[in-house]
Amino acid sequence: MSESLNRELAEAVGAEHVLVDPEVTIGYGTPWAAVDGVAPAAVVRPGNAAEAAAVLRACAGHGARVVLQGGNTGMVRGGVPASSAEVVLSTARMGAIEDVDRESLQVVAGAGTTLEALQARLEPEGLELALDLGARSQATLGGMAATNAGGARAFRHGTMRRHVVGVEAVLADGTVIERLGGVLKDSTGYDWPSVLVGSEGTLALITRLRLRLRRIERSRAAALVPVDSLAQGLALAVALRDRPAGLEAAEFVLPGTLRLVCDELDLRPPFGDREPADRERPLVLLEARAAQGAYDLLAEALAEHPEAERAVLAEGAEALGLWRYREGTGEALARHRVVKLDVALPLARLAEGVAATERAALDAAGPIHPYLFGHLLDGNVHINLGDVPDDRRAAVERAVLETVLAHGGSIGAEHGIGRAKVAWLAADRSPADIAAMRSLKQALDPQALLNPGVLFD
Amino acid sequence: MSESLNRELAEAVGAEHVLVDPEVTIGYGTPWAAVDGVAPAAVVRPGNAAEAAAVLRACAGHGARVVLQGGNTGMVRGGVPASSAEVVLSTARMGAIEDVDRESLQVVAGAGTTLEALQARLEPEGLELALDLGARSQATLGGMAATNAGGARAFRHGTMRRHVVGVEAVLADGTVIERLGGVLKDSTGYDWPSVLVGSEGTLALITRLRLRLRRIERSRAAALVPVDSLAQGLALAVALRDRPAGLEAAEFVLPGTLRLVCDELDLRPPFGDREPADRERPLVLLEARAAQGAYDLLAEALAEHPEAERAVLAEGAEALGLWRYREGTGEALARHRVVKLDVALPLARLAEGVAATERAALDAAGPIHPYLFGHLLDGNVHINLGDVPDDRRAAVERAVLETVLAHGGSIGAEHGIGRAKVAWLAADRSPADIAAMRSLKQALDPQALLNPGVLFD
Repeated sequence: MSESLNRELAEAVGAEHVLVDPEVTIGYGTPWAAVDGVAPAAVVRPGNAAEAAAVLRACAGHGARVVLQGGNTGMVRGGVPASSAEVVLSTARMGAIEDVDRESLQVVAGAGTTLEALQARLEPEGLELALDLGARSQATLGGMAATNAGGARAFRHGTMRRHVVGVEAVLADGTVIERLGGVLKDSTGYDWPSVLVGSEGTLALITRLRLRLRRIERSRAAALVPVDSLAQGLALAVALRDRPAGLEAAEFVLPGTLRLVCDELDLRPPFGDREPADRERPLVLLEARAAQGAYDLLAEALAEHPEAERAVLAEGAEALGLWRYREGTGEALARHRVVKLDVALPLARLAEGVAATERAALDAAGPIHPYLFGHLLDGNVHINLGDVPDDRRAAVERAVLETVLAHGGSIGAEHGIGRAKVAWLAADRSPADIAAMRSLKQALDPQALLNPGVLFD
Repeated sequence: MSESLNRELAEAVGAEHVLVDPEVTIGYGTPWAAVDGVAPAAVVRPGNAAEAAAVLRACAGHGARVVLQGGNTGMVRGGVPASSAEVVLSTARMGAIEDVDRESLQVVAGAGTTLEALQARLEPEGLELALDLGARSQATLGGMAATNAGGARAFRHGTMRRHVVGVEAVLADGTVIERLGGVLKDSTGYDWPSVLVGSEGTLALITRLRLRLRRIERSRAAALVPVDSLAQGLALAVALRDRPAGLEAAEFVLPGTLRLVCDELDLRPPFGDREPADRERPLVLLEARAAQGAYDLLAEALAEHPEAERAVLAEGAEALGLWRYREGTGEALARHRVVKLDVALPLARLAEGVAATERAALDAAGPIHPYLFGHLLDGNVHINLGDVPDDRRAAVERAVLETVLAHGGSIGAEHGIGRAKVAWLAADRSPADIAAMRSLKQALDPQALLNPGVLFD
């Protein structure tokens, strides 16, 4: 990095917030849960939109490309540099949570606020953002907005797109745009939250967000249900979704993944010795929430479904315990080297698509170990393929993603495209779509300074 | 219109769908509920996206500007021509409703489908779009998306933005862009529904939409509550919103408007002779829906509020009858010449803002008659000012909108900007916002052919 850019950055944010020591910056340059990283030219940590604007103006003046980074929990290398010439702009210092608007059920928070910090602030008020993620302790609201984060409750409450009602953001040239007032009906020109959420930091840096909140429903219950097939599990989940049973999550774990979780985390299989065959069946986890009586709601709903007769139900803290079989997948898989893919299928083709995908992976790579689990009512499948020979990694990725596309699915689901899937975008979106996307990128970031290599190669 | 453009349009859609007789086209050139119109150069009615693309290519080739028109129920002249040089593209023939996806609770429909036609198709399936409007018999899904329509249920289910999950659209140069698959998690590049909904036809013509649906809750109840003040009414509505009372609508009608509705529609005042003073108090209409027992839910919730002790409750068809006092406003006002404005205020400043706005209107125009009503939990106020002298119309509009802005409100609420409010956009959005909006317009419609004069002057 040139001396003059370094000086301008220090003027913008204070010298203590410009990090250039590679031993420090390599941390920002290494993707979450990865070992290989690139130390960026610098890491700059502005404290607000005005400072961020000065940073971006300085970088634009020097033609320096900028990677925007929140909690660095992304899965597709969208928030880490690809070369040591890039500057990382970290939102870590923009973590203020402002007053809660109880009338409108909204809150304004800085982009660098972690989801967990927001939850801690809102819980005593009986409010929540109706979206939750395993990465809550590190994932930031800005990153979650940029990537349109999803999670387990999205089938009911939507992905991040449905929760962001206002933003303050900085364009590549340092222009600050803003719509943060929180008026609930406001059709006065283009809506920045809509344009920016899900654009993966390619159009602007989000610096503050106004979020829609919801009252917390404190009564909770969960059920683990062994099902004959994914199709049966989906039909059960759809039936519960479509009645007032307070369904807030419907997750699935396929048998191979369940075995891995139990082995790695030393957990008793969920159905004990009662029915050993149940360990070999897909597992569905259902969670219900209500102001009161969630357990009864869920039990009554399940009682109408003979296929759920062997369900294990729990409430309160015990219900959280049942989540271990699903949320333990991350920890269990971290100990294995896997090819990670995140896809979604139309619900009408989910069971068929998952079977075809698993077959395609095995055909492409031989005796590998597929670990599949995900969010049933979104058709969102996390695919982890273990023991893939190095020389088959590209082939197996191709086989899976092509199968997903052939079933009308999405290759970006909730993790997005980032840099990791950029070569695949053209397989999913039409040339006309990509040309129109490029024209929007060109309009807001004509020098292509923000998140180079993300979405567009 | 040139002979050659006429010929190209006829080739694109068939001569019978190119209307040029001014006696016919003046109907398309006249705003809803208005008498003054402009006959466009032609009205073209393509049957699908390919025909629409051919129409737009032909118009682009001749530099002819195009106004996009759905049901022509807009309130801000956004869908009618400003000059006889403009071509109207009507979506009337794109009214097909495709299969309902019961797994995903979605449906694909043509942009020209009326809301009423969609409701009729979905009702037997027990499904609905969770958004309703008085103009349902004419308003089209495409127009509702373009203008981000709202209505009474938006505080709970959101405006149109939250319901459109996929679109097919045609850019000004005839390029067709599309994302209609309905995968529920799909973060693969820019999201066309998000970019296009609310852009008032300035970026593209929407030709088909994929909409999120909801199960109909068939048990319905409503209550009319006379309140001491708008602030008291809002506090009551907020309290009911925040408990499981199934609240689906919370409307208000101020006393002067209630008198007008009763007089014009020859209705008995809602509280009869029981308590004549109630006629002089703001009226709040609450509607609850549930799978069953909506009446009891609403009654129990109201019983906790002494200020609601004189509420009149009804269920089923009788509940619909109570809506007459609110929905009759349109019919009652149609008989008067009024200055119509549609604004929204932050809930925290609603009561104060409404009082200040009424005062500002009276100060600006002397002894006029303000008729106010609207959607309480969105802060959305429909302002109709009767008996405004012609030479005070501009002054009174300015007084009202400036007061709304001074209270942090929106001047576009649910009707949008169109052409009627275009001079006001710069008072609501910052120069930076408007410059960024213009760059998006330039990116997708560089010749500025679509909806000229809408949003941007």
